[in-house]
Amino acid sequence: MPIIVQKYGGTSVSGTERIKNVARRLCSAQDEGHQVVAVVSAMGDSTDELLKMAHDISADPPERELDMLLSTGERISVALLAMAIHEMGHEAISLSGRQAGIQTNTVFTKARITGVETGRLNEELNSGKIVLVAGFQGVSVDEDITTLGRGGSDTTAVAIAAALDAEECEIYTDVDGVYTADPRVVGLARKLDTVSYQEMLEMAATGSEVLMLRSVEYAQKYAVPLHVRSSFTEEAGTWVREGDETMEKAVVRTIAHSTDESKLTLLRVPDRPGVAATVFGELAEANVNVDMIIQNVSEQGTTDISFTVVQADLPAAQQALDKVCDELGVAYVIGEQMGKVSIIGAGMKSYPGVAAKMFKTMADEGVNIEMISTSSIKVSCVIERDQVEKAVRALHSAFNLE
Amino acid sequence: MPIIVQKYGGTSVSGTERIKNVARRLCSAQDEGHQVVAVVSAMGDSTDELLKMAHDISADPPERELDMLLSTGERISVALLAMAIHEMGHEAISLSGRQAGIQTNTVFTKARITGVETGRLNEELNSGKIVLVAGFQGVSVDEDITTLGRGGSDTTAVAIAAALDAEECEIYTDVDGVYTADPRVVGLARKLDTVSYQEMLEMAATGSEVLMLRSVEYAQKYAVPLHVRSSFTEEAGTWVREGDETMEKAVVRTIAHSTDESKLTLLRVPDRPGVAATVFGELAEANVNVDMIIQNVSEQGTTDISFTVVQADLPAAQQALDKVCDELGVAYVIGEQMGKVSIIGAGMKSYPGVAAKMFKTMADEGVNIEMISTSSIKVSCVIERDQVEKAVRALHSAFNLE
Repeated sequence: MPIIVQKYGGTSVSGTERIKNVARRLCSAQDEGHQVVAVVSAMGDSTDELLKMAHDISADPPERELDMLLSTGERISVALLAMAIHEMGHEAISLSGRQAGIQTNTVFTKARITGVETGRLNEELNSGKIVLVAGFQGVSVDEDITTLGRGGSDTTAVAIAAALDAEECEIYTDVDGVYTADPRVVGLARKLDTVSYQEMLEMAATGSEVLMLRSVEYAQKYAVPLHVRSSFTEEAGTWVREGDETMEKAVVRTIAHSTDESKLTLLRVPDRPGVAATVFGELAEANVNVDMIIQNVSEQGTTDISFTVVQADLPAAQQALDKVCDELGVAYVIGEQMGKVSIIGAGMKSYPGVAAKMFKTMADEGVNIEMISTSSIKVSCVIERDQVEKAVRALHSAFNLE
Repeated sequence: MPIIVQKYGGTSVSGTERIKNVARRLCSAQDEGHQVVAVVSAMGDSTDELLKMAHDISADPPERELDMLLSTGERISVALLAMAIHEMGHEAISLSGRQAGIQTNTVFTKARITGVETGRLNEELNSGKIVLVAGFQGVSVDEDITTLGRGGSDTTAVAIAAALDAEECEIYTDVDGVYTADPRVVGLARKLDTVSYQEMLEMAATGSEVLMLRSVEYAQKYAVPLHVRSSFTEEAGTWVREGDETMEKAVVRTIAHSTDESKLTLLRVPDRPGVAATVFGELAEANVNVDMIIQNVSEQGTTDISFTVVQADLPAAQQALDKVCDELGVAYVIGEQMGKVSIIGAGMKSYPGVAAKMFKTMADEGVNIEMISTSSIKVSCVIERDQVEKAVRALHSAFNLE
């Protein structure tokens, strides 16, 4: 029997009525002849409530204990969902991350899945049950509970879909698909029927919150087709799958943006081998995700190095820099209120001049570009945060995405 | 280093300020030279909130899923408590029931502890940490999460104290000890300095909510001294330990009562071997705890059988009886609004006439006795629920407990 994995985000289960709605969808999927696994997030803003209690107690709570705390939210969701399914006369069982065989490394709050033990999953599916897996969490080799970071339930779903060789993985969320730009910013933004893994990866990396980067990487690696859709309608959403020629006809497919970037610049760094390695090694040690990195050419034996981090990582980044800059004897400056705007499209690689058109559009709007980064299917610019929305609208229009 | 186990109930951790208060107590206990284990219940009424959600979804939720749901409350408590202790500069680690090695049988919602694997507990204690164990829960041989029933955190604490050979087990609760009667009912009730395990067992069995029956049985079996006290004061509470002669001087030590009894009577049951076994076997199968059982002498080949259950078990009891009465061809009647009043004292066994004095006191108050049950150190009477408080006050006075 074909296996389908469905993932439901926090808004889809925020309250007992919505939980019953999800239960009905799962029962339907089983009635249609599937073996059904659902991966479920914590209810609504319950994770934020737990975090608030933690921060009432400690400004900097130990990460192991944060994971013990936050992993409870998804367990509540799956237990309640199992009850709702039983009430509808179907059989269901809830599994914690550990019980579902989700094994991770030992990096608390940002753990990576290292494997999925499918023994119990298969056993429960084969006994005819709808299997409900607490998303966002796993168990480390040290027998500690770990969580996978913001949006980690997507990764749980994809990892299980891959391990079970599922037919597809449906990601139910509060938006009904992937758009040419954020519809809250661009009124004329259109929903896309399909995007390639590559495009989705660039979107996730440049600020789209529809799917977590890690989950798309995982889906691409194991060729799991993803279907991003809304749990409040029956309409099809956006498929994320292997790219093909029809997708590449459009040069730019979507405008992504983010408004939570901070920029750090190390001034007059001695230009000798190993310096960058020291700096970014220290940041990696502190679990800071560095996004864009720029190093200018050397002048008189020194150079400036700039990079961006998400604003939440800024305190950890500063702590790491304080240490390493002291050793190197250099100073650094911070641009806290930054944002990023990106154009993305698999067709871009065969069309020259796309980047130039982007820069001209921004210049016409009076937007100053502070950093640029490119890949074969993406151009990103770091700009002042309060200019991001203006830039997105101008680019959406310039590349004819209406 | 001597090990101390402290157990904190839900009211002791109902809010972040109270959690910090508990953290301070634990740090003090460690500073005084103990290895410290704390067993913690769910915050305040969080368990009731979870139950409310479950009952919004299903009138009769599957018990396995109830355990998955309810076990989250204690995990939240221990994680937050660990953060509070870290904030005070001490080291702590939270452990789930499973991580603390609490192994149980497979009876969901009322599981029994079958063993405690102390490997990780000892490891963490020896590394200098205060160890915080989520109460009320364990893991079954099937790798499912189980809970131990109402008050189960007491049992967790005693089981860990026994397994670690702890010096003592302190039970912190919202009352400051064991009284000669419920102070809410009898204004002149006195706190007792010590009671024997045997007396405490009778109290737990007859309605005292200070300690769960199972935890006292466990403490007696492994000779773990218990100290029942309040987390809001520094005053000593009541010690529960092996009885001695000084305890036996008083004939009646305490008046216990409960107001959540229901009485069921099977009418004209055929008086042949095996009938009672069939009835109570079926009830046990349904996990109904039967308290008092009375069978009258046979008349014309039939007899009446009466028994009591706590009111919460009444639906399950009725379901079981419907089945077995149908097979036996007998009817039953229910007395839903019943209560129980008991006199308890280890000295009672050497004084005749104690029961008679009890019955006379009740008669003088116009209280009708419906059922009687006695042990060597206790006499219990089932009466109408609305007469319980009057009876307790009269008995407290009659046996000079003021």
